[in-house]
Amino acid sequence: MSQLWLLQGPAGNYAYQLAITMRIVVDAMGGDHAPSEVIKGALEAVSIDPSIDLTLTGDESKIQESLTDSNEPSSVDIHHTSQQVEMTDRPSQVMKQKPDSSIVSGINLINKDKAKAFVSAGSTGAILAASLLLLGRIEGVKRPGLGVFIPVGKTGFVLCDAGANSESKPTHFVQFASMASKYMTHIQGVENPSVGLLNIGTEETKGTEVYVESHELMKKCIPSFKGNIESRYLFEGNVDVIVCDGFLGNNIVKLAEGWIAHVHRDVSQRLKDQVNSAKEKKLFKSIFSKAMQHFEYEEYGGVPLLGVNGVVIICHGSSPARAIKNAIFAAKKCVETDLIGSIKDDISSTVSLIEKYT
Amino acid sequence: MSQLWLLQGPAGNYAYQLAITMRIVVDAMGGDHAPSEVIKGALEAVSIDPSIDLTLTGDESKIQESLTDSNEPSSVDIHHTSQQVEMTDRPSQVMKQKPDSSIVSGINLINKDKAKAFVSAGSTGAILAASLLLLGRIEGVKRPGLGVFIPVGKTGFVLCDAGANSESKPTHFVQFASMASKYMTHIQGVENPSVGLLNIGTEETKGTEVYVESHELMKKCIPSFKGNIESRYLFEGNVDVIVCDGFLGNNIVKLAEGWIAHVHRDVSQRLKDQVNSAKEKKLFKSIFSKAMQHFEYEEYGGVPLLGVNGVVIICHGSSPARAIKNAIFAAKKCVETDLIGSIKDDISSTVSLIEKYT
Repeated sequence: MSQLWLLQGPAGNYAYQLAITMRIVVDAMGGDHAPSEVIKGALEAVSIDPSIDLTLTGDESKIQESLTDSNEPSSVDIHHTSQQVEMTDRPSQVMKQKPDSSIVSGINLINKDKAKAFVSAGSTGAILAASLLLLGRIEGVKRPGLGVFIPVGKTGFVLCDAGANSESKPTHFVQFASMASKYMTHIQGVENPSVGLLNIGTEETKGTEVYVESHELMKKCIPSFKGNIESRYLFEGNVDVIVCDGFLGNNIVKLAEGWIAHVHRDVSQRLKDQVNSAKEKKLFKSIFSKAMQHFEYEEYGGVPLLGVNGVVIICHGSSPARAIKNAIFAAKKCVETDLIGSIKDDISSTVSLIEKYT
Repeated sequence: MSQLWLLQGPAGNYAYQLAITMRIVVDAMGGDHAPSEVIKGALEAVSIDPSIDLTLTGDESKIQESLTDSNEPSSVDIHHTSQQVEMTDRPSQVMKQKPDSSIVSGINLINKDKAKAFVSAGSTGAILAASLLLLGRIEGVKRPGLGVFIPVGKTGFVLCDAGANSESKPTHFVQFASMASKYMTHIQGVENPSVGLLNIGTEETKGTEVYVESHELMKKCIPSFKGNIESRYLFEGNVDVIVCDGFLGNNIVKLAEGWIAHVHRDVSQRLKDQVNSAKEKKLFKSIFSKAMQHFEYEEYGGVPLLGVNGVVIICHGSSPARAIKNAIFAAKKCVETDLIGSIKDDISSTVSLIEKYT
């Protein structure tokens, strides 16, 4: 969509400018801190980048409550929905039972070409189910994968699949590698990303049958495949994309989260008990927090649902405003750089290779 | 074996006493710090508990080098072996190609009733393969499991299987639960240990097919089964035994290890760069190390190979003397409390239940 903007120039002069805007839908009801933190983050994104048109889906009265205190920009639309997806709802039932929820309605806006991307901190399962039914898969993609960006090392890496599927075949592993590589190039700017297979050892024969077969197929189909990455070295940042099945990936991501929370609590208690000086406490806390930040992926712009035929970004349930803001910027970048088109091209050549070798 | 000891009483008087001794074999060549740290730890164990008779297996001349500086007790035997298992050796070939290695010969001493237990920090795969061939499985046990004790929370918990098998069936999960529970009772003194199934969510329908079926079978066969434990809450210490497949378990254990090393390095560097006072550096290092200790399972007496018909304790490759010493004490406790007999009894009743429900 194009819009006329009145922009203030560096010398204080004003000028009208024709600018291309992009409408992004944000699920105002999704997440532990919804709607307030979600809306705060969304408004921050719009205030930094006025080329974003914002649609908030959810209960209008609740959204309005969070908007009154803020300086609501004119580019914000509210799309009222009467239902809400709860974490206890079965994802497979959401489309049928909650068609007027902020998730289903929000994704439907992309489906109807009324918006370019959808961002939500709501139920991953529900978002996945609704995306698959409303947007479908990119041509050639067998299974979508959840790619989590872990900001460790120089450029960070993507772990895929972090939980979209509970069981995966070698073909899916190859496609996760292809899609996550495209994400690394488009969103993180990494040219020709290297790929590793998460495993219990570096030898080709390590792991379950699926992992042994996946190793073999990836070696043939992914030119930048570097072999197995032992989980011990997961955080050393040796490759840009790490592929695993969704059951292992989800376990790892949740384990990391629980571990960070546990160690944080423990260190805080020890600081409270053993350190008297407020200055020392602050210094130690900052050192410790910085060491831990490398793993706090939830801050880094959400998780793209790779393989779905549309830009859908899933944020962590406990996302603060900053994470929502970053997710909106990531969504915009996905659209601008045509991540979907690029995945489509790569998948079609990967599919030929897979067919050749299986 | 019984021995006459000359013991010094509290009043300085001496008395001969008939004491029951127990011979434990320690693989002097296994581990990153072998033989020096292994021998140091083994001698410490013997000096604390003189009822332990020690046999060290390995290259006699290398063992003697480490012994010369120490006060070698009379109860130490050296069983010379001419071969050494390398980490690159294929476990399945070790029995055939390295029959005179410290691992194979050491386990053979139990097989020949010349010792009660075997302790090694060498190749897990080789120890597992040799144990299965020489000692066999406890009657009724389908697959042995590696139980790692994680000392978090009040009593700590055992994670089983930590990597003995790469694929497991529901029947194996039930047996891991039974065997690891016996370990918790015999070695950690926990009565009626509670059991959880590691999973990506608490609902019965979560996880792969094997996990859904395992949940169902464990509910029927394990009276103290508490359901799924989400990996996020792994370290909360809510149950005494956590069961998972060996691929996930091994990934988790190695991940935790790599992670601790990574965060340790990171925090040390930040302390070096940002803290000038040596006192402050020391204080924070101690706080941080104490918070991390909960996860450093390798210190806590090694990993029992559960389900093998003999007491075999596997230590971490980088075990310091303290870990070896603790592993020897754990081995002794396993023998004294007849862990094998207890596992045998429990497995036989578990097998009836499994047969009833499958």
